[in-house]
Amino acid sequence: MPKALITTIPFGDKNRLPLELLEAAGIEYLINPIGRKLKENELADMIADFDVLIAGTEPVTDKVMSRASRLKLISRVGIGLDSVDLLAAERRGIHVSYTPDAPAPAVAELTIGFMLSLLRLVHVANAQLHRGEWQRHFGRRIPEVTIGIIGVGRIGRRVLTRLSSFGTPRILVNDIHPDTKLVPELKLEWVGKEEIYRQADVISLHVPLTAHTKNMIRAEHLDLMKPDALLINASRGGIINEQDLADTLNSGHLGGAAIDVFVHEPYTGPLAGIERCLLTSHMGSMSIDCRTRMEIEATEEAVRFLTGNPLKGSVPPDEYEVQRQGL
Amino acid sequence: MPKALITTIPFGDKNRLPLELLEAAGIEYLINPIGRKLKENELADMIADFDVLIAGTEPVTDKVMSRASRLKLISRVGIGLDSVDLLAAERRGIHVSYTPDAPAPAVAELTIGFMLSLLRLVHVANAQLHRGEWQRHFGRRIPEVTIGIIGVGRIGRRVLTRLSSFGTPRILVNDIHPDTKLVPELKLEWVGKEEIYRQADVISLHVPLTAHTKNMIRAEHLDLMKPDALLINASRGGIINEQDLADTLNSGHLGGAAIDVFVHEPYTGPLAGIERCLLTSHMGSMSIDCRTRMEIEATEEAVRFLTGNPLKGSVPPDEYEVQRQGL
Repeated sequence: MPKALITTIPFGDKNRLPLELLEAAGIEYLINPIGRKLKENELADMIADFDVLIAGTEPVTDKVMSRASRLKLISRVGIGLDSVDLLAAERRGIHVSYTPDAPAPAVAELTIGFMLSLLRLVHVANAQLHRGEWQRHFGRRIPEVTIGIIGVGRIGRRVLTRLSSFGTPRILVNDIHPDTKLVPELKLEWVGKEEIYRQADVISLHVPLTAHTKNMIRAEHLDLMKPDALLINASRGGIINEQDLADTLNSGHLGGAAIDVFVHEPYTGPLAGIERCLLTSHMGSMSIDCRTRMEIEATEEAVRFLTGNPLKGSVPPDEYEVQRQGL
Repeated sequence: MPKALITTIPFGDKNRLPLELLEAAGIEYLINPIGRKLKENELADMIADFDVLIAGTEPVTDKVMSRASRLKLISRVGIGLDSVDLLAAERRGIHVSYTPDAPAPAVAELTIGFMLSLLRLVHVANAQLHRGEWQRHFGRRIPEVTIGIIGVGRIGRRVLTRLSSFGTPRILVNDIHPDTKLVPELKLEWVGKEEIYRQADVISLHVPLTAHTKNMIRAEHLDLMKPDALLINASRGGIINEQDLADTLNSGHLGGAAIDVFVHEPYTGPLAGIERCLLTSHMGSMSIDCRTRMEIEATEEAVRFLTGNPLKGSVPPDEYEVQRQGL
């Protein structure tokens, strides 16, 4: 009987269908018994007997795979591939699939929510009122500010679509593959990243974590930003240097930040001591509908594989190329 | 030299133009020296010498007017008229003007921000992370829920417009004057308030405070709502009974609430002890652009009046009729 290890949690929690799909296909499964994101050693110690890994964002390294003699498919619940050593998988003949579209609408909505909270200091006023203080903060509206989006792929373009009903802000965009036909009514300005750092009032990152984006925003980039700029990261931890961001905010520079993703999760660190830094717990994809879709798609891929059917969500060659170039 | 008392604060803070308009017209002014919303007695003790009141939301009652023998114009910075005794003003021959359009875009944006925070539990995760806890909350997306809007005037319709780029939620609307031609692409369902209480996942209030809306939502109405319903009030304090809301939330009913307005401001009360209740400090109109526009419009009205020019923002007769019928 084939066996699947499910490391991402929660799983099958709001909708049991993914588990039922496995059961109907006669696939035995184990859900992450540790109940939080696994470390490399924990996964390595756990994976020996499994044919398929239905994976979260824990490190699926060469070392992990070296302990997984039966493993033939890694099916990622989500879009990011920074946690998977694609080249090691390729060498070992392990297929890798993912669900790149499913999380995008949920991340885009959360991003708009972050923008509106940051622009109006909702999170600051909320903390103050909950401890008995009353201060009326001035804020800004979306059509009054310049918005900079770095990374205009599946998520970034959905952020732009949702911005379109808020009036007409100036929007600066940056991507390694500019698509100048996007959302024409918004009159996007394609510019370099440094121009976004210097000119935008709200900067939101929607890039994958790669060798090129790791530590992309450090102290010297934060220093370029406007004194009241607002910075959002709901993509991957480590793209903004966390310590530099904390130091910068503590120095009084920047109007605020909203951070959903961290180098080490669960996060504990200096950003937690900064009130104008809005923090959430890697919840970008955590809408019930998107999360369910991600789990179902990743599970269907596992079932297809183990029942001898062709894969539908294989990671495309350019993702391997990204890693070959350096992460 | 004519004299204007400015009670709303802050005033002329982010943009000095309103003060410059008064100075250019040779109008002497005093800005609220107490630095917070005035109580009735404080205003009554202060108002004797003034020809014009540029007013916030402090009570402008018959008693206040009885102490204001020179007062000829109340120019409200904002839209709500619940704080002004219009009938007393009418009897005493005091004109009343307001700025009903200026705050609407800012309130509508804040409302969308509240929806997104509530739907994704952003405020709860933020509080948890700031005290070192990590919990990944499931949320919902706008197109997955039923949204109920009570009051579809200047602000409610702007909320609807902004919702239009988020997909197609089911939207229930209620107004004493239904306008069935509004935002046709959203397929609004015009229903009674009780149907909104029973069916909506997100309920947002955009009504004025009148005899009909005061205490409109009490324990028995909250009880009708879904166990995970989310309730938003960025209109006026007192439309939802605050104690009933606190008791209801403390009992475990409702998924959360976002409250920007209170019976007594600055607010201190039981809602401050409830983490899933998002609280802000009457910041609906507090975007720099809308606030500035409100201050300028109210000041221009004062200048017009004191320089013998016709008023442009007179409160229309139906607002007097509302008060004649009972508040």
